[in-house]
Amino acid sequence: MTPRVVIDQSILRANIERMAAFARAAGIALRPHVKTHKSIGLARMQVDAGATGITVATIGEAEVFAAAGFDDIFVAYPLWVDESNAERLRALMDRTRLRVGIASAEGARQLVRHAPGVEVAVEVDSGHHRTGVSPSAAGELAAAAADAGLQVAGIFTFPGHSYRPGGMADAARQESAALAEARAAVEARDIDVRVISGGSTPTAASTDASVLTEFRPGVYLFNDAQQLLLGTCEAHDVALTVEATVVFSGSTHAVANAGSKMLGADRQDWTDGYGRIAGQPDARIPALSEHHATITGAALREGDRIRILPNHVCTVVNLVDELWVENGTTDRMPVDARGRNG
Amino acid sequence: MTPRVVIDQSILRANIERMAAFARAAGIALRPHVKTHKSIGLARMQVDAGATGITVATIGEAEVFAAAGFDDIFVAYPLWVDESNAERLRALMDRTRLRVGIASAEGARQLVRHAPGVEVAVEVDSGHHRTGVSPSAAGELAAAAADAGLQVAGIFTFPGHSYRPGGMADAARQESAALAEARAAVEARDIDVRVISGGSTPTAASTDASVLTEFRPGVYLFNDAQQLLLGTCEAHDVALTVEATVVFSGSTHAVANAGSKMLGADRQDWTDGYGRIAGQPDARIPALSEHHATITGAALREGDRIRILPNHVCTVVNLVDELWVENGTTDRMPVDARGRNG
Repeated sequence: MTPRVVIDQSILRANIERMAAFARAAGIALRPHVKTHKSIGLARMQVDAGATGITVATIGEAEVFAAAGFDDIFVAYPLWVDESNAERLRALMDRTRLRVGIASAEGARQLVRHAPGVEVAVEVDSGHHRTGVSPSAAGELAAAAADAGLQVAGIFTFPGHSYRPGGMADAARQESAALAEARAAVEARDIDVRVISGGSTPTAASTDASVLTEFRPGVYLFNDAQQLLLGTCEAHDVALTVEATVVFSGSTHAVANAGSKMLGADRQDWTDGYGRIAGQPDARIPALSEHHATITGAALREGDRIRILPNHVCTVVNLVDELWVENGTTDRMPVDARGRNG
Repeated sequence: MTPRVVIDQSILRANIERMAAFARAAGIALRPHVKTHKSIGLARMQVDAGATGITVATIGEAEVFAAAGFDDIFVAYPLWVDESNAERLRALMDRTRLRVGIASAEGARQLVRHAPGVEVAVEVDSGHHRTGVSPSAAGELAAAAADAGLQVAGIFTFPGHSYRPGGMADAARQESAALAEARAAVEARDIDVRVISGGSTPTAASTDASVLTEFRPGVYLFNDAQQLLLGTCEAHDVALTVEATVVFSGSTHAVANAGSKMLGADRQDWTDGYGRIAGQPDARIPALSEHHATITGAALREGDRIRILPNHVCTVVNLVDELWVENGTTDRMPVDARGRNG
């Protein structure tokens, strides 16, 4: 049946081992972001390979992994905690070692009110300009949080501006510089900075182990068209593809039966389409509907099976309930936290 | 809890009634595309209001609705039927009245081989240039299908190029012209054309009832930011929003906790962001991460609850297992066919 999401477990294992070996050699803790796969089985593989804990984005993801026995979880997101989610957060604190992001004094006050005693990390903006305080302001926020009764573990950032060709090394340098400055600012308030956390798949190879104590890449275990174009992996390192069938072949293009409801609609402004076709480096996907991938630059006939490398694997996995496994010990693997995005 | 997808059932009912009344007045069959909502309860509301059947995009969707008792289903898609999905298609034929799209002689031959006797409609390209044959070639494909033993019900098209400001009326005219030409081409082969099917939400108001016998709009029951910008609805006609919480408020922007995993990443090249904020017409969403909507042009404080109008509602509903209902008779409604995209 197509379309379906297929993972090659031998490539996957190699990707997981490679990142774990890098972390070991660098002497830095690897805390992979499991929002990429949302799968208990895959997180277990990462922990078995040496990950010291996991990263999640939402309370819902934390609940799924805590229920499965994961006992060290970082919600790397500035949660706003109120009556609607406080009980869930407190239940998590009873079940697992939990660390939560804070990015403002108001957010910290909400945490104190609803989940007193929770461990937090101060989010620092290292150049992505999304959430987080400036490095120089990290000390003030850490002090406010500590004074209010939160346990400040340290600081974290996400160098999301690394997702751009030629921008990876710069982003990694900015990440290190911002974290070093933020560390000094927090220590100036007499607060011990035990955790200095950063990382993304594009910056992983440039991680500065003299600054960071842990890093949180996500995509690396699968890779995707975006990573291929950024140059962080080769085509043979891509462990996840979407298998599709060509349903139409016209004079200017072909159409396969995987659209935005299988591939996601992610398209960075520096890419030239909605993914790549395995084994067809000249093929492009200039247009995507919900159930149609329009393909140019490839000689395809109706009925052909193709493998599409999606642009961004994290949103693909969230679209399906299970992954089909090749070269592995099982046929399928559930996406346990699919849809747990709140 | 946020983020969550909320539907206003009173707006929804009005939208459903309005389109049904238009179809009645025009004397044309309304066969709504249920890929928009994937919900048995909402399809029942559409049928209760006068829809003569439903449209789906995949065998998986057809299975869900056939199992719920829907007995007249059009798979408006050029399925490629082979050993991997033939049994499912045959089981559907036993269960419901089924019509399937064809867009090539090869596709028709596959249907004959695996699902002999199935009713088909020939897909015509009316200007969207995705799948389908040219209007003049519809006769040849219909004859090939009929000769091979398929029951040719008629022709269909999707005027998808209507999703562009200023393009709606032109697309509707091209739709009518293409279907009229295709009808003549099929009738020239002595094949009765019982079904002439078109339609989309942007072209619905321009439907030419002198040509079409049925139309298949999908989005109209919810509407979304795209329809608002196209001018096919007003802000008070939007029945579906994503409720989110502001988690960060900086000097240049705010961030809410709904990202591409709740809103979808759909962004047409003629839009200026990833949706709109209800009640804040000047607000924009220039950037979207998986769990972050970056918002400019609005005075927002951390903890504020906002309602986001997504760009494209069909991909949003496919991301969640249930819809939260306001002004209705129930609290929640399941998305029964979520993820059934193959």
